[in-house]
Amino acid sequence: MAVYTEVTEEELAAFVAEYDIGSVLACKGIAEGVENSNFLLQTSGGSYILTLYEKRVREADLPFFLGLLDHLAGRGIACPTPIHGRDGRALRRLAGRPASIVSFLNGVWPRKPQPQHCAELGGALARLHLAGADFPGRRANDLSVAGWRRLIDACGTRADEVRPGLAEELEAEWRGLASAWPAGLPEGIIHADLFPDNVFFLEGRLSGLIDFYFACNDLLVYDIAICLNAWCFETDGSFNVTKARLLLQSYRRQRGLSEAEMTALPLLCRGAALRFLLTRLYDWLNQVEGALVKPKDPLEYWRKLAFHRGVAGIGAYGLE
Amino acid sequence: MAVYTEVTEEELAAFVAEYDIGSVLACKGIAEGVENSNFLLQTSGGSYILTLYEKRVREADLPFFLGLLDHLAGRGIACPTPIHGRDGRALRRLAGRPASIVSFLNGVWPRKPQPQHCAELGGALARLHLAGADFPGRRANDLSVAGWRRLIDACGTRADEVRPGLAEELEAEWRGLASAWPAGLPEGIIHADLFPDNVFFLEGRLSGLIDFYFACNDLLVYDIAICLNAWCFETDGSFNVTKARLLLQSYRRQRGLSEAEMTALPLLCRGAALRFLLTRLYDWLNQVEGALVKPKDPLEYWRKLAFHRGVAGIGAYGLE
Repeated sequence: MAVYTEVTEEELAAFVAEYDIGSVLACKGIAEGVENSNFLLQTSGGSYILTLYEKRVREADLPFFLGLLDHLAGRGIACPTPIHGRDGRALRRLAGRPASIVSFLNGVWPRKPQPQHCAELGGALARLHLAGADFPGRRANDLSVAGWRRLIDACGTRADEVRPGLAEELEAEWRGLASAWPAGLPEGIIHADLFPDNVFFLEGRLSGLIDFYFACNDLLVYDIAICLNAWCFETDGSFNVTKARLLLQSYRRQRGLSEAEMTALPLLCRGAALRFLLTRLYDWLNQVEGALVKPKDPLEYWRKLAFHRGVAGIGAYGLE
Repeated sequence: MAVYTEVTEEELAAFVAEYDIGSVLACKGIAEGVENSNFLLQTSGGSYILTLYEKRVREADLPFFLGLLDHLAGRGIACPTPIHGRDGRALRRLAGRPASIVSFLNGVWPRKPQPQHCAELGGALARLHLAGADFPGRRANDLSVAGWRRLIDACGTRADEVRPGLAEELEAEWRGLASAWPAGLPEGIIHADLFPDNVFFLEGRLSGLIDFYFACNDLLVYDIAICLNAWCFETDGSFNVTKARLLLQSYRRQRGLSEAEMTALPLLCRGAALRFLLTRLYDWLNQVEGALVKPKDPLEYWRKLAFHRGVAGIGAYGLE
């Protein structure tokens, strides 16, 4: 589940009174989400999402995230829109935590993504990248090459508990990626965590993107690599090139990819796979007694990494 | 959390199409609740609660529960109203589970119940008892005297792991209760689990009662005993007689209590405390690896039981 902080009804009523959204009718903790406490807040003014930011999100980053959502919503991206209080502020405190209210987005995330979902996703991702181009905020990606190094060091030889030899393999993979990581490719705002549970659909059409709490400045094509990993592998581990082709085609209809970006894709897919392998590995090795969220299998991303290491070229992703 | 079963968007759309409530706009798992998977379902027709019944609820009991809710809603009780499909049925299957849709109730449950909440509760409990009087369904309380015996046997000497000597104390308590348990008091439909998280309030007024999945036929005053345990102890373990007095006063304004019912109250409070002590103890001793719900402290109810054993008479509950 994802409710770590309890809010009393008096605190909630006083908090909501800071906004122009009517009075509280109901407020239910949402089981989805891992990082923060999320509530579906219903008021006489409509439906909203109330988020209490828990310790995994840096408080200093919150103005960046909320400012980005303001910016993207203003550019027509279907993302949560921060609700500003009567004092103009979108960020305040509730039950001892930083907290915000954002608009509620209709839609359901796809439990079994189909090719058409990937086609919708590609276009939305490109529009997101274009809409973010003139956002003035900046946030470094702390889960890129240097961040992987820190995670590898933090896991150390304990990686071998998950798979014998894994610690050494991670070292070799990191060295290879660090020395070959491309420079000079187009950069901008990326979502950096656009998994199926962060993308809503209504009757087959993409209706919303949520959970921008990993958003940062990085190579735009790296965001594509994250999506290829998250959307285009089947549960049996096979890579569905039809899904990848549709995702990339629809992306390129909105924003063209340079030769250099396409050439870099296999390497970036390896990097994206390593990133999720490492955070999952770290969480696996550092399970909290009585935690409410089960850690995800790190080796799923080990197998994805192996796929990308083995591709002969961009044809494997449906590009030519 | 309380989402044990995943539902694909296709399954959900097909399920909702059996009802006259419009099309799915959103469906989010709710973090509250322990027994079943609950979703806040939003359709073009409004807000609803979708419940998938998990294995702790007996499927054969579901017609009783849904029929009771139909009956109570028809008598004006603010409880979830089962939504019937176009075929008239309120109970069907979804994702391999029995499932139902009920109306959504506004309100927020009180995290720190105040005396006024207890006053509201007492009146609502009495109205519930009166409204259930002509419900034709019957369901035995499998968590009464005979059920406690089974739980004591299932826990056995392992009770001493929680508190040395507890196994023997439970035996003695059960023998005392079983021999003195009253017969001939007014019976009817009881909620049997009316804890604060099952009672919603809006601006200080009670707005709804939920979670009828322990409802059964039993002594009406036993339901009061459950509420006294659940609502009138402070977090430091002290009993708040003001809350108890308000609860009982407002109950008696709606439904009078006989002398025999009042005299039985201390014993019934002991029984109600033993019931929750035993189910918590059983869950504590039988924790499931990787369970998503933390077991509650059984000894909280041991302390409540000790209070009721020590009372001199019904004056302790604000009755005279």
